[in-house]
Order: sequence, then C-alpha cells, then structure tokens
Amino acid sequence: MSPNAQDRPDFFTRHQELLERSVAATRDRGFWSPYPEVPSTSVYGEQAPADGEAAFKRRLGRPFELPGHPGTGTVPATEVSPYGFPLGIGYPRVAPAEAVATAKSVTGPWIAAGPDARAGVAAEILARLNAASFEIAHAVQHTTGQAFVMAFQAGGPHAQDRGLEAVAYAWAEQKHHPASARWTKPQRKGEPLALDKKFTPVGRGVALLIACNTFPTWNGYPGLFASLVTGNPVVVKPHQGAVLPLAITVRIAREVLAEAGFSPDLVILAAEGPGERTAAELATHPDVRIVDFTGSSAFGDWLEANARQAQVYTEKAGLNTVVLDSTDDYRGLLGNLAFSLALYSGQMCTTPQNLLVPRDGFATDDGVKTAEKFAADLGRALDRLLADPQRAAGTLGAIVNDGVRDRLAEAAGVGRTVRPSTSVTHPDHPGADVRTPLVALLDAGTDAEVYTREWFGPVSFVIGTDSTEQSLRILRDTVTRHGALTAAVHSTSEGVLAEAERAALQAGVHLSENLTGGVFVNQSAAFSDFHGSAANPAAGATLSDPAFVSGRFAILQSRRPAPAEETARV
Amino acid sequence: MSPNAQDRPDFFTRHQELLERSVAATRDRGFWSPYPEVPSTSVYGEQAPADGEAAFKRRLGRPFELPGHPGTGTVPATEVSPYGFPLGIGYPRVAPAEAVATAKSVTGPWIAAGPDARAGVAAEILARLNAASFEIAHAVQHTTGQAFVMAFQAGGPHAQDRGLEAVAYAWAEQKHHPASARWTKPQRKGEPLALDKKFTPVGRGVALLIACNTFPTWNGYPGLFASLVTGNPVVVKPHQGAVLPLAITVRIAREVLAEAGFSPDLVILAAEGPGERTAAELATHPDVRIVDFTGSSAFGDWLEANARQAQVYTEKAGLNTVVLDSTDDYRGLLGNLAFSLALYSGQMCTTPQNLLVPRDGFATDDGVKTAEKFAADLGRALDRLLADPQRAAGTLGAIVNDGVRDRLAEAAGVGRTVRPSTSVTHPDHPGADVRTPLVALLDAGTDAEVYTREWFGPVSFVIGTDSTEQSLRILRDTVTRHGALTAAVHSTSEGVLAEAERAALQAGVHLSENLTGGVFVNQSAAFSDFHGSAANPAAGATLSDPAFVSGRFAILQSRRPAPAEETARV
Repeated sequence: MSPNAQDRPDFFTRHQELLERSVAATRDRGFWSPYPEVPSTSVYGEQAPADGEAAFKRRLGRPFELPGHPGTGTVPATEVSPYGFPLGIGYPRVAPAEAVATAKSVTGPWIAAGPDARAGVAAEILARLNAASFEIAHAVQHTTGQAFVMAFQAGGPHAQDRGLEAVAYAWAEQKHHPASARWTKPQRKGEPLALDKKFTPVGRGVALLIACNTFPTWNGYPGLFASLVTGNPVVVKPHQGAVLPLAITVRIAREVLAEAGFSPDLVILAAEGPGERTAAELATHPDVRIVDFTGSSAFGDWLEANARQAQVYTEKAGLNTVVLDSTDDYRGLLGNLAFSLALYSGQMCTTPQNLLVPRDGFATDDGVKTAEKFAADLGRALDRLLADPQRAAGTLGAIVNDGVRDRLAEAAGVGRTVRPSTSVTHPDHPGADVRTPLVALLDAGTDAEVYTREWFGPVSFVIGTDSTEQSLRILRDTVTRHGALTAAVHSTSEGVLAEAERAALQAGVHLSENLTGGVFVNQSAAFSDFHGSAANPAAGATLSDPAFVSGRFAILQSRRPAPAEETARV
Repeated sequence: MSPNAQDRPDFFTRHQELLERSVAATRDRGFWSPYPEVPSTSVYGEQAPADGEAAFKRRLGRPFELPGHPGTGTVPATEVSPYGFPLGIGYPRVAPAEAVATAKSVTGPWIAAGPDARAGVAAEILARLNAASFEIAHAVQHTTGQAFVMAFQAGGPHAQDRGLEAVAYAWAEQKHHPASARWTKPQRKGEPLALDKKFTPVGRGVALLIACNTFPTWNGYPGLFASLVTGNPVVVKPHQGAVLPLAITVRIAREVLAEAGFSPDLVILAAEGPGERTAAELATHPDVRIVDFTGSSAFGDWLEANARQAQVYTEKAGLNTVVLDSTDDYRGLLGNLAFSLALYSGQMCTTPQNLLVPRDGFATDDGVKTAEKFAADLGRALDRLLADPQRAAGTLGAIVNDGVRDRLAEAAGVGRTVRPSTSVTHPDHPGADVRTPLVALLDAGTDAEVYTREWFGPVSFVIGTDSTEQSLRILRDTVTRHGALTAAVHSTSEGVLAEAERAALQAGVHLSENLTGGVFVNQSAAFSDFHGSAANPAAGATLSDPAFVSGRFAILQSRRPAPAEETARV
C-alpha cells in the first residue's frame, strides 16, 4: 500500500448500494434507470445546460487534452458535425503497438485490486459521466447527427444505464464463486482429507473497444465497463466521425482511475488521423484478448474470423422486420410505426426495414387494409408526424454520413415509391442535412433481392405477401440467414401471436407485440430489455447477460493442505 | 401434449433436490460427490460387480445395439484393449451430414420443454449411468488402459460428478433471469408505460462432442450434459480407440429421452470405421454450433481456428510444472510426487512433466538436496512404490497407444536418464503393456528445447535451475507460451508461496501447494476444483464454470403492452 492510500476515496463503499440494487435489477428485469433521462435543470442543476454547452464549445478547434496520455503528437481533426460545421479537434496520437503495450504494462495492480474495487471505480466513472451529460449530449449531437434531446438521452443517461448494467453483471459474475473454500473429504479410515482453496478472477488481457459513428456511448459503454470491471485494461478506438463523446469518457475514466490510485493508462484513447485504418491492426495484436465491436456486418464478420486470439463481441446489422396480421388500433399502429421509422431518420440498428403485409389486406378496426393502402396510410402518418419543421428536426436529427445519403438515393429506384424522402430545413441549423423516411412498396414474390439487403437509414419497405403465414415464414427465413436486432408483430389473435413468438425463437430474434402507444420497437431499456442476440447473424453478443461478461475473465484457483489442527476439528 | 403424456415419469421432480443441492455446491465449492466412488457391493449391490462384468463381456465380438439409431449398417471394430485383446464391437454407421440433420430435426420439442424438464432428464441419465458404473468401468479399462479401480472411479462416479456439475451450472444459468417480468416506467404525466415480457432460453444448435482416448467419459460428460441441458441435441464422436464407454452412455441417454417423451435422436453416436476421419467434417458443418473437444493441441488449435460457425470448448495439452523450493516433509513430497507420476503411467493431462529444482539444492527436513540427488531420490521412491507387481499394475494401468510408446523410446535419449522406464508383467493380463515412469535430468540453461515440448505419457524431467526465482520465471514463461493444466509448488516460505501464486495467476494456471499426503496434483474434484482454464493455451474452457455453459444458449425475449386494467392499478 502506498503511503497515502488511506486518503484515497473508497468508491466501492460510496456506490455499494447502487451496485447491489443494480444486480437485483438484472435479475428481476423490471424498470430500473438510476440516471434520470430528462434533460431538466431540476434534476441536473440550474447551470447544467449552459455549462455543458460551454464545455462543448471550449473543446472545438483545438487539441483535446488528456494529461499523461501515452503517445506523441496529435492526430488531425476528423469530425464534422452533421449540423454543418467541422469540430476541428485534434486528439493524442498513439501507435497501436504502443497503446496495447502501455495498457498491458499497467494491468497487475488492477487485477490485484479485486472485483469490489474495480466495480467501485466503474460506478464513480459513471456518476461523473452522468454529471457531464449535457456536455456529452452536445458531443453526441454533433458527431452522430441525433437531435439534442435524443443525444442527451441515448448518449447520456441511457448509455450510462447500459454501462451500469454491464458493471452489475461483471461484478456479480466475478463473485459467483467464493474467494475461498474449505474442501473436506471423508475417508473410510482416519482423518478426512482437507484442503484450503482460493479462487481469484483474473482478466483475460488487453481489451479493445471499436466504437461506431451513430451510438458511440450507448453501444460502447457495455464493452468498456464489462472489460474494465473484469480486470482488463481497455484501448478505445473511436470511429473517426465520433471521437469526442468517447474522448470525454476516456478523460473522466482516467481521472477517476488516478484518484483511486491506479494508472490512468488502464483506459487509452486510440484515435485515428484522416484516412488511417487501425482497427484491424489493433484487433489482431497478439496481446489484445477481448474485442467489442459495433458496426457493419462486413467488418464484424471479418473480426469474428480473424481476431482469433481474442474473445470477440459484435453488434452488426440485419433485417429488422414487422409482421402485420391484424389490429384493433389502426391509428395507434400507424402513429407508433411512423415514429419508429422517423426517429433519428432510421439510422438506428433497431429501426424496422421490412414491413410484411398480406397483399390482399389485413383486418383493422377501420376495415381491411391492403398492402398498398397500408403503405399509403403509413406515408400519410409520416407526413402528419413531420409536418412541423421544428418537431420534424427534433425527431429526425441529421444524416450522419454519405453512406446513408447514397443508400437513400438508390432506394428511390427500387419497387414503387409510395412516400419519397424529402429534405427539411432545420430551423436552427441551416447547414444540417435533414431527411424524412422513404417508404416503398415491394412484393414478397419478386423483390427478395431488394428486401434481403440491409438499407441502413430512412428506408423502409411495405412488402405484400400471400398471407400472415408467408409473412412469418419470411421473418424466420430472412432473419435466420441475414440476422435482425428487432422484430415486431401486430395481431389481435393469440394464436398468431404464439406463432410469431415461435418464429422469433426459431430465428433467434427478440420480438415486440402490438406496440401502439408510447413504447417503440427501436427502444431497448437497460436492465429489462435484452439487446441483440448471438442466436442470429446480426450480433455475437447480448447487451447484457452473463455470457457478455463471463468470457472476459477466468477464475484461477490455488489449494493447499488445511492446517492440521483445524482439520482435526472438522 | 400427447395422449399418454401424463403417464410419463416426472424426472425433474424426482431429482429436484439433487439439482438444488448441486447448484448450492457449485457456489460453496466444498466437498460434494453424490455418486459414491468406492466400487463396493455395500453401495452398488451384491450383484453389481458380476453383473457389470457380464454385461461388458456380452458386448464383445458383436455389433452394439442402439435401437432406432439413425444411419445404415455397421462400422467395423476399431477398439483393442491395452490389456491385450480386440473388443470386436461394431457400431451403427451414420454419415456426418445425416447425424447432424437428424439431430437438428428433433430439436423443437426439446427447446420447448424448458430448463427444468431438460435438467430432470439429464439427472435421470446420470442416475442410470451411475447404476451402470461397473459395466462402464470394464469398458473404460479396456479402451483406455486404466487399471480397474481407476477406471471405475474416474470413468464412473467422478465422471458422473463432472456431468452433474455441468447440469447444475446449465440449469442455474438458464434460470438466472425470470421467465417473465412486468416493466412499468413512470411518466411525468398520465399513466405509466407498462409492458409484459417473456424470457426464453434457446439452445444454439447442434452440439458436437469429440472425445478422447484416455478419459472418454470424465472429459466427455461435461460438454455432453452442458449442451443437452441448455437445449441442444448432441452428436457424440468418440475416439476410435474408446467408443464403448460412450456407446453405453448414448444408449442410456436415448432410453431416458424416449421414456420422457422426447426423440432419442437428441443424442446420436457418430462412430468411425478404421482409418476414417470425420471429426473435422462434423466440426465445420454449418449446422454444428457447439464443439467440445479433448485431445491434442494440434487438432484443438485447428478447431479453434476453423470451426468458426461454432462455440468451441477445448481441453488440449501443456507443460505441467512443479517448482521445488523447500519442504519440511521430504519423504511425503517424494511419495506424493512418485504416485502422481506413476498413476495411469502419466497418461493424464494433469501429470507433472517439468520438475524445477535449484541445481545446487533446496532445503528439506532431511538436508539440502541438489537437483541430481532429488532426481535419484524420486527414482527410488518410484522403485519403492512399484516394487510389488500387483500393486504396480493397479497403479500404472497399461499403455494406451503407440504414440505413448514412441515418446517413451525417444525420451530415453534426452538428458541424463536417472530412472529408466521398465516393463512390468501384469499378473492377470500377460498381454498388457505396462511401463513404469522414466525420470531424466535436464538443465534449465541448455535443455529448453526438450522441456518446452509436451511428452504425454510416463516421462518427467528434473530440471536444474539457478534458483527458485528462475524456476518461477520458467513456470511463468513456459506456461504462458505453451499452456499447462496443473502447476504445483513446494515451499516452507509463505513469501515463496505468494510469489508462486502470483506467477500462476500471471501464467493463468491452477496451483497446488505442498501436497505431501493423500491428495495429488493430478486429481481434480468436481464441484470444488476448477479444471483447465482459458487463461493459458492448454485449454479454451474450464470444467465447469458459468462461462462453460452460458455460450450454449441465448435468452430471447418477447414483450407486449400490459393489459390496461392491470396497468392502471400499478
């Protein structure tokens, strides 16, 4: 123990109650969200909004400071706000090999500290991230294109909830077994055999987080915190378009680690300069033993095949599907679905793409609706939802990058466009590229080539099928082959709902049923909803469950004969 | 439910108490062995030994019957007893693709049955395996070469303990989360949002067990039962030299499955004919989603690299190491170590190979012993242990195959042989090839090429080092690079023991300390000792821990709005 260790804050004691409550929540899976989602001054303080915005603006146009960070020099700025201005922020430059070697070299005391101390540090990092939610919201808005309120919620408190959920699983799984045990084996003659055993969780090695452009914190925190709490240092490789939210995160993590007496280099930022591609090099480094990735199926599949020295956890992409069989609330269905398609311009890994509707119509409280009629009604629901530019901008956010724009242009040429995508002038950010969703009508029989591709962005297809039976078969077959992160069904028949549940279990996808109110298929609540599943090709892991953390550490044992005087007493 | 479903035995209720007690044992990790290890008539019944032997003998020289088993025809006999006679048993022939397709086709009702029903079936299979322990003992003896008592214990009750341990983890992990939950999110205005959620564990797909020649049941049961209980059908691919113990196992499993109303094809035997090699084809079949393997590092590494569509759990090989620093019971140390080397002629994945001793000597209660003196004393301890042919045969068993014989011949030419391997005439089986351990003296500085190879079989090296410090460094470095399933240390210094524990944690290997009595480094007790660790290259999994089971299934959820009248009450 170093001379002033006793002066150090005891983060575990500070957060023990929160950790215990969170572990209980992972087991009962009811509602639990310790970080308030409302960007309100009554929760976060009178000055929080202004301070957060000022903090964000101070970071623009200059190098981001990470005191004591390894590496030399600065990588040039790569981030441009989808709202129309470059961020102009440089970040420390550290070569992949140096990042990994530095992280590896500081692991020892972190493993020796044990699960309680590590969970305490993680909870303190999350507390300070929560306090920085306004600053992070601006950083998320101007890297991902999310509208401010969504950037606050998804990038701040909801991401923190997902981080805490991972902390809870990681902490609990390491304490699944006792730290020590006495083994006493009766013998037919004489004294029993007795051994004292110690069980120590040990991290697997350096962890790598490869983060994405659209949800750098929400998708990044689970892997970051799961690895850290199970005793692994983490190298954070942000997407070139969304560095700042993770740079702020790394900065806070390093501050807390140092205060707790650990090396801040347990969390390292590995930013890339323009045109650099370091993810593959980092992911296949022999000392990288854990990789968390969110992004394209192509690179995710590559990682799973090539980063063989590591445990690889991926969230990739797929064909999110809705089966429409019948409803007693057609208006609610249209409103709910329109919002799901419009939210963040469909740039969510959970946005529905394929809407399967019986060609000749399905029963509703407003009469039978053919596929064509439904597509037109959905288009009108989108028009209504997005009629007011201020409200439209607040729902749609901005287009994150050229890939989405290109797909949107291509989608205009497939099937029959029922509702074209339109541009919206953002009332506050004239430079923002804001687009509304495109809805096209396809046929199950002839357009399989179109709807078995993923069209990430504001593109959805109403697909006419022979029947609900065929719709469910398409759900099962396409999701089995191409994966999906969400599936949904609307039906007034318990029999059809049961069939849909069976199809979803077979396809390995989570299912939402009859959502017509204030919950949307693309929302996934930490501590209650599982997000993703290794049971279909769209992901290699679930946020979060025991499998998400148990491969990040091993339990090692030592054993020795129990002292003779104690054995005799047994 | 089929008409007579209510007449079916309720195996879950029958075994629920055992399952609960077993789950508790996985968590407290004290002594727990529900299947008695003593091959005694007072435990197993007056007729059990004779009945078991008769059952074994009836199987010789004819096709093994598995009623209703898929496939056509019989594969020719491949097994020859290491005690000197061919078994002459044919097995059903089933092509790899047919085995996998058949297993896959019967999965649905097994998933639908849920974790309780599956755990009940597994516990009943284990109960019947336990009752068949004498027959299995003969089958294990005459395929592996283990002496009878060891074949009974390791192949029977201890294997069953390991199987039950896997059942307990698999059952408990699937019940980690509730089957359903109500999620109620307060709203700032109006009624809370409320959803009802269901959570269903779903198996990953067809599981493949690739078993080994030396411990077909002990190493095979954990994967078999972990896969089965988590909802996966299992194709059992035995080693050509050790089919019978697993054929008996498959037969019993199929009987119990059928009695419980499930397809017996949830467990299929995929035996090979002479010279056939089906493991790679099976392991890379797209529908095989889980592979359990015990055997060579070469094929285990190949599986990890190539069976990418599957979760792969391996137990391979490494350099089991003992560090000798000091002792206050030199005689106990020698006796304990000699037995560890002699047991089953060192043909255990846990037998020590590299004994690291300070060249100039280490302190004992009998004076300082140089490496050379220690090697000679160890040789004499082996001579004493194995002086009586009956006792020697009962400890050594027989040599399992030519690979071991070849290595033993090669080992006679490395370093300085301090104790040569000798042949022992088996009093009851004159055709058995019984050999005693070879001990050779090496030097840490000049012989690294020799001791960084694995010499599976009765070959051990006393390696002279500069100091205990160097010994621990060699332990850490060689195990980090080449892996190990066991490590041991002898020291009277708490400081050295702490250093050894640190080195073992760094190398990722389990450690035994100061074993001088009736517990041996190569023994690993289910429910208390962890066996293997993904933390070093000798294995990709641990028997058993949550990580061994959690990747075999996914939890899938469905959610729907809670009924309005109930929501309002919340």
